[in-house]
Amino acid sequence: MPRSDDDARHMAHALRLARRGLGNVWPNPAVGCVLVRDGRIVGRGWTQPGGRPHAERMALDQAGQGARGATAYVTLEPCAHHGRTPPCAEALVQAGIRRVVSALTDPDARVAGRGHAILRAAGIEVTEGVRQAEARALQAGFLGRITRGRPLLTLKLATSFDGRIATASGESRWITGAAARAHVHALRFSHDAVMVGGGTARADLPALNVRGFGAVRQPVRVIVSAQPLPALPPEDAAHGPLWQVAGDPADFMAELGSRGLTRVFCEGGGMLAASLLKAGLVDQLVGYTAGVALGGDGSAAVAAMGLERLADAPRFDLIETRCIGGDLFHRWQAGSR
Amino acid sequence: MPRSDDDARHMAHALRLARRGLGNVWPNPAVGCVLVRDGRIVGRGWTQPGGRPHAERMALDQAGQGARGATAYVTLEPCAHHGRTPPCAEALVQAGIRRVVSALTDPDARVAGRGHAILRAAGIEVTEGVRQAEARALQAGFLGRITRGRPLLTLKLATSFDGRIATASGESRWITGAAARAHVHALRFSHDAVMVGGGTARADLPALNVRGFGAVRQPVRVIVSAQPLPALPPEDAAHGPLWQVAGDPADFMAELGSRGLTRVFCEGGGMLAASLLKAGLVDQLVGYTAGVALGGDGSAAVAAMGLERLADAPRFDLIETRCIGGDLFHRWQAGSR
Repeated sequence: MPRSDDDARHMAHALRLARRGLGNVWPNPAVGCVLVRDGRIVGRGWTQPGGRPHAERMALDQAGQGARGATAYVTLEPCAHHGRTPPCAEALVQAGIRRVVSALTDPDARVAGRGHAILRAAGIEVTEGVRQAEARALQAGFLGRITRGRPLLTLKLATSFDGRIATASGESRWITGAAARAHVHALRFSHDAVMVGGGTARADLPALNVRGFGAVRQPVRVIVSAQPLPALPPEDAAHGPLWQVAGDPADFMAELGSRGLTRVFCEGGGMLAASLLKAGLVDQLVGYTAGVALGGDGSAAVAAMGLERLADAPRFDLIETRCIGGDLFHRWQAGSR
Repeated sequence: MPRSDDDARHMAHALRLARRGLGNVWPNPAVGCVLVRDGRIVGRGWTQPGGRPHAERMALDQAGQGARGATAYVTLEPCAHHGRTPPCAEALVQAGIRRVVSALTDPDARVAGRGHAILRAAGIEVTEGVRQAEARALQAGFLGRITRGRPLLTLKLATSFDGRIATASGESRWITGAAARAHVHALRFSHDAVMVGGGTARADLPALNVRGFGAVRQPVRVIVSAQPLPALPPEDAAHGPLWQVAGDPADFMAELGSRGLTRVFCEGGGMLAASLLKAGLVDQLVGYTAGVALGGDGSAAVAAMGLERLADAPRFDLIETRCIGGDLFHRWQAGSR
């Protein structure tokens, strides 16, 4: 098999490992690392909850002396800055790695090519840009925090067939089925924070935590409201930190980015959804549609947007659709208008 | 191959032929017929536009002398009543058919087992009930007109991601893409009639015809309104008959059944959709969802239903979902509540 095929295959493996960290490693990137010597995998690592150890450290520890002469596949350029631990680029050199294959250059100003430079200066062969597009998509939250100054935003809408989130009398539990609701917890788990508007927080007193996945790092709970918050559970093992933001959506999204969040999952309500959509801040839409009709006197999933022209409406591209339990699941990404 | 496998295979073929007639043969059922002799297909037929010739007649004419000794696969019991032409059961006897395999007994009081009886009286072996469930689903419109006294009703909703059919300013062309709109014409083609409410008829002056499929039997245009109709095109080669109905939905659906319709395709607007859903008259929902958000001040696809409890809302089961053009297509069937 040509070397480029091997490289692509091992990098795909490293990307699968990296994915495990999404939602659990902020403010750090979720990285994957695979060490291969003589065609055999001798170490695997991914960024651990909270951001440390890094993927390279974990893989090197697993390989031990087996790392000597190996090729390291990393989904992001190894770090070059001294933090609580020595930089990964130096650790790879010290472990006797012969070659490094990376998918992306780290845009962090403390790295930005210096990781690759340390490796090359030590005589290690470096191949860059393998599966770059996939790595970029996986790291969209981390990259966007640096390049756009805000986290990636996923908006979830769980609605009736006709776009409603409650009956005219306010009943909303449950429109979608148990399988769809469990799927929402998996999505919360892959995001750093779960965000709702103040009206939803006051009306539902939602737990906004991840349930059904054992003991996990709980996402930050972000409430968008200028009013005093209701009595939500304090931060503990089952509930993440509780943050309050308010004001212009672009401003509070920038604030969330500056506080380290890379992936935010918004679950409504209708007013917050409308303001985020209108401001063009929604990167990804996920819909759970139930086979039930509630009528136009039910609560709208998206509140008034004041659109004059259809051409001004935010557009999204369909990525995926399937059945989850009895409900329709669909996922969209912000289109290039 | 066992005879039952052959029977199932040839009946599947006959059902595919029968499907061609859907929407084009009312008030008759859409039937398919395959004649097989010594393992070879010697004739194929399906109910022709307008309901005549019947499938059996077409297949027998194609087979000619080849029909002698053949097995006939028919998706519905052959007719037993003298109309403009002799009954198909007698035609099969006269052609020398040796065996008849049918999927369903015809519930029409003029047939209701008499077709099968004529065949057996002539010494023909008859096997009934092959692929019965599939035949029943295919014939749901015709069967329901007889057993429930009304046509099958499909409700189409083409909406934004948040369930809107127009912006706050009333702009609605186009929310879904060209491929989805072409797909709607295929669905119109497979229904006997296209139905809209009076408000939609007056606002949009819709053509309500099938375009892009050549010269076809155009569906009946049904306008639900107690008010005078706007100036819609008269019936011609490109536009079906124009019928006006009004009043209670269950009553006008029964009226449409008594006038011979077996499959009705409702395309809104929101008031009509709400009244049909609330009355439990919708058998099938088809959704085209565009990746665009219009906001709660846009027009709702389904108007107020006055539902007090979630448990009272009509429920549907997801049958199919896929991407058509850039839009999300989904199809649901009325659930057993």
